[in-house]
Amino acid sequence: MYRAPVNDIAHVLKQVAGLEEALEQKRFGDLSGDLVDAILEEAAKFAAERVAPLRETADKHGATLKDGVVTTAPGWKELYRDWAAGGWNALTGAEEYGGQALPMMLSAAVSEMWNAGSIAFALAPMLTMGAVEALEKHASDELKALYLPKLISGEWTGTMNLTEPQAGSDLGALRTRATRNGDGTYSLFGQKIFITYGEHDMTDNIVHLVLARLPDAPDGTKGISLFLVPKFLVNADGSRGRRNEAFCASIEHKLGIHASPTCTMIYGDGTSGEGATGWLVGEENRGLACMFTMMNNARLLVGMQGVAVAEAAYQKALAFARERRQGRAPGAKPGNEMSPIVEHPDIQRMLLTMKGLTQAARSIGYACAHALDMARTGDGEEARHWTDRANLLTPVAKAFATDIGVEAASLGIQIHGGMGFIEETGAAQLLRDARIAPIYEGTNGIQAIDLVQRKLPLDNGEHVKGYIAELRAIVDQAAASNCTKLGDSAGCLTFAIADLEEATLYLQQALAEGRQAEALCGATPYLRLFGLAAGGAYLAKGALTSEDAGRAVLCRFYAENLLKETAALKHCVMNGADSLIAAGATLQD
Amino acid sequence: MYRAPVNDIAHVLKQVAGLEEALEQKRFGDLSGDLVDAILEEAAKFAAERVAPLRETADKHGATLKDGVVTTAPGWKELYRDWAAGGWNALTGAEEYGGQALPMMLSAAVSEMWNAGSIAFALAPMLTMGAVEALEKHASDELKALYLPKLISGEWTGTMNLTEPQAGSDLGALRTRATRNGDGTYSLFGQKIFITYGEHDMTDNIVHLVLARLPDAPDGTKGISLFLVPKFLVNADGSRGRRNEAFCASIEHKLGIHASPTCTMIYGDGTSGEGATGWLVGEENRGLACMFTMMNNARLLVGMQGVAVAEAAYQKALAFARERRQGRAPGAKPGNEMSPIVEHPDIQRMLLTMKGLTQAARSIGYACAHALDMARTGDGEEARHWTDRANLLTPVAKAFATDIGVEAASLGIQIHGGMGFIEETGAAQLLRDARIAPIYEGTNGIQAIDLVQRKLPLDNGEHVKGYIAELRAIVDQAAASNCTKLGDSAGCLTFAIADLEEATLYLQQALAEGRQAEALCGATPYLRLFGLAAGGAYLAKGALTSEDAGRAVLCRFYAENLLKETAALKHCVMNGADSLIAAGATLQD
Repeated sequence: MYRAPVNDIAHVLKQVAGLEEALEQKRFGDLSGDLVDAILEEAAKFAAERVAPLRETADKHGATLKDGVVTTAPGWKELYRDWAAGGWNALTGAEEYGGQALPMMLSAAVSEMWNAGSIAFALAPMLTMGAVEALEKHASDELKALYLPKLISGEWTGTMNLTEPQAGSDLGALRTRATRNGDGTYSLFGQKIFITYGEHDMTDNIVHLVLARLPDAPDGTKGISLFLVPKFLVNADGSRGRRNEAFCASIEHKLGIHASPTCTMIYGDGTSGEGATGWLVGEENRGLACMFTMMNNARLLVGMQGVAVAEAAYQKALAFARERRQGRAPGAKPGNEMSPIVEHPDIQRMLLTMKGLTQAARSIGYACAHALDMARTGDGEEARHWTDRANLLTPVAKAFATDIGVEAASLGIQIHGGMGFIEETGAAQLLRDARIAPIYEGTNGIQAIDLVQRKLPLDNGEHVKGYIAELRAIVDQAAASNCTKLGDSAGCLTFAIADLEEATLYLQQALAEGRQAEALCGATPYLRLFGLAAGGAYLAKGALTSEDAGRAVLCRFYAENLLKETAALKHCVMNGADSLIAAGATLQD
Repeated sequence: MYRAPVNDIAHVLKQVAGLEEALEQKRFGDLSGDLVDAILEEAAKFAAERVAPLRETADKHGATLKDGVVTTAPGWKELYRDWAAGGWNALTGAEEYGGQALPMMLSAAVSEMWNAGSIAFALAPMLTMGAVEALEKHASDELKALYLPKLISGEWTGTMNLTEPQAGSDLGALRTRATRNGDGTYSLFGQKIFITYGEHDMTDNIVHLVLARLPDAPDGTKGISLFLVPKFLVNADGSRGRRNEAFCASIEHKLGIHASPTCTMIYGDGTSGEGATGWLVGEENRGLACMFTMMNNARLLVGMQGVAVAEAAYQKALAFARERRQGRAPGAKPGNEMSPIVEHPDIQRMLLTMKGLTQAARSIGYACAHALDMARTGDGEEARHWTDRANLLTPVAKAFATDIGVEAASLGIQIHGGMGFIEETGAAQLLRDARIAPIYEGTNGIQAIDLVQRKLPLDNGEHVKGYIAELRAIVDQAAASNCTKLGDSAGCLTFAIADLEEATLYLQQALAEGRQAEALCGATPYLRLFGLAAGGAYLAKGALTSEDAGRAVLCRFYAENLLKETAALKHCVMNGADSLIAAGATLQD
């Protein structure tokens, strides 16, 4: 059963990703390292004792829809209630609306725990958090006063309504329309798909944030506005008013995250003829900008799902490998007894690959959260620097982590052998659940394009260079450390960082010279190269800042076994475009 | 909907894997190239019109067990009946028992089609084929006469009963016991798990081949005997006798291949007190040897499942990518129209990766089938050579192909975006179905160990060297061809083959010097290196022997984008063991 690796998490937060320094700088008021530890321990306890035990049964039951009402799995409602009562939903919310205003780093860390317990469960508050953020930044004071306290406490949940059948990655194509009612309210008409927790039975109201077009809006992405559309209208005194025309028409039958209802939502179904009543959030036609301000956090948190599922898969596979005996491992004691399969090198390779990639992705995610915290608590030049850093790391934190989540979950099945394919074992569910994360909140292909096209040019291309210099400084420290347990880590990392630098400069130049197609061809391999190299540097930093020799030997395994892939990826980026373009042309009708 | 790529299949069979030459040598009697084409066309027709249309509905219904009776999905029984009536089951069976004795190459090719239609369906005859082969080679004439005609026609199906809860990869641990009845028959008592089509409603008898131990058998793998245990006893005149004590106790709830019942079988459940009646196949205590003679074919056919599912995933994703429009691709015509996503470089990269790996794995599979055919139709030194070749290629054909099957199915989901995660789309099922193939018929880890420990030493280590020299000769031809569409294929392939050679020599030396643990550490990366390099050479051969420029540009994409991974894999093999061993030690309790 899953138990959060509190030591690893605390170590990466404080020593690798920068929390200790931030605490020393009193960035978060009187938050102390001890309090951080206490919060992590409490969250770990709740994740292990309450969330994880429901992962498999909730998957089996799933969510059901009948007459417009979604019933969640047995125990789900109570789990959510107790979780919110524990104050977990309010962790990062603004203090004036009842939140605890704790750092994003802590949010990322505990989010990893909820998701390792059950992605399907953690999704509900993740969406609420997105809604809270959008409202905090863009809503009127009146809307904030009416909705934020209950969204922050978790009494209500929030949803994000972007996708329509013809508008997925390309939101410019969306058609849901909104008309002005003249009284400050709007009426919405349209259909939204893939709405996570669009309808459920865990709270007595749901606050939908919906992207739609006004009648006189420009075409494309510049004509999209954001609206707040509650399931039940809210009276001025905060009490619940009439049912709004926001209904769940169907829920999807999905590969995984069965306990999370994925809804098709109909706004304005004609029951009143008036459409769904909504309130504008931010300015008209500026809805996408409102969404983008919360994208960083949401993408980071989806990245944490990748870390979480990889960690859960690793723990499950390790436990199995220690119990299961088959064959005799090299060097096994004389006798006829079969060896635990954890002693077989091939099983060890799989487990260490899972563990190393998990720790690498975790470090990147926390570093990204750190940047968000530094940007929020800094100002001027400093804030700009950390905003750039968060922007740079976000696509990597999302895509690298969710890719390795799938990879680790698949390796976890393999380690279980035949048992891994049997649903009762629970290893298969982790793959089923993991598989959504590279898709939603911007596909990993979109993340890679974002990294190359929008993030490499940040600060005239200097920001990423500064980041690479920081990674190199870590590697230089590793080289100077004379830590024999690190083996050739520094040597391997030096090559990997050089690969990252070369590929980066190449892409920056390609973009500068207008060779956009060529740069796009290399986007996905570049993102993985970035993640592998940065993650490797963080593993080295973790080893250098810890007494635990396990961190050094893991870093060494990662460096000497996994990191050479960067050379192949660099080759793809720098030499792969021509053949991709030539062969790609043959695929078209 | 799936349509077998008959042109590609025929081209790889004839021009790449050696069928044309074998036909010219009259290895298979009067089988002609035209007849091969006709058979492929017929099989493609049946796979497209009959098998593939049931893939998704059968997955949804699955197989159900009630009172010991397994009911397969609607239409399954009729599908199997018509398929067998078409003569497909008898393709490779011995002529004296009604078979067509056609080459294994053809069997591999049509097997790819059935599996691309539905792995769950194709499994039933795959197991029967294994049973036929074991009986043809090892059973008494009496058993052959009684069972082979109906197993070859497909009137009955066969099963293979190896696994027990404590005995998976390690068959030496099995406990099912057999006692001698004194009349030439045996009584079996025990439980077998993961028995594919152990019970079903498609035929009126099922012939189980069961591994068990005699009372006086030595411990371990040298004390295992093989028994034929029919569901219904068969009278001397071929009519059906009494029900035997071979019962299905439960069926598994699996991640995929839902339409294939995976049974727990109980032999000798006490209803008669006499156990299940069985007949010895081969000699007492030589059961494992009997199984191993059929392993090559079975492993190859599982490898074809990987090819098949990758091809099916590719076709589905390509069709979607041509239809689905999102965003604007670089170089899109002026205007506001969204581009089909097949025009986006990142989507092209995924599609071409799927296509290239599929073709590579297909080529390796057919080359392995060719070796089996050459061994069967040759004699003396020649037969020995081709037996070595089949032995060398079998683990690669199995493991490389099934790994890329999972990889391609996962990419297929990604290309579909959010729709890929919805079960109705059918992309998710391909991943669910694909995920078993790296596990059964010897896990891919076992295949890698087999390749390194037992296949590299073949012919005193010379056989693999000769094979690598053949691959290099292909690359030299590519270099000499001056085909501009091949780009730098020859250059990339030269490096890849050199990586393969270096890693091979390194492992051979490690084994020779008794550094077994070190060699085992590199087994899995070595197998993938082998598959990538060999597959690349076959793609080049395919390009050189074809007028179709598409083969050259695909080869180039593969060489310039995918093949650099070999350097990283070689590094793992040659430099990865120490860190793996050091870190592996930290995983143990």
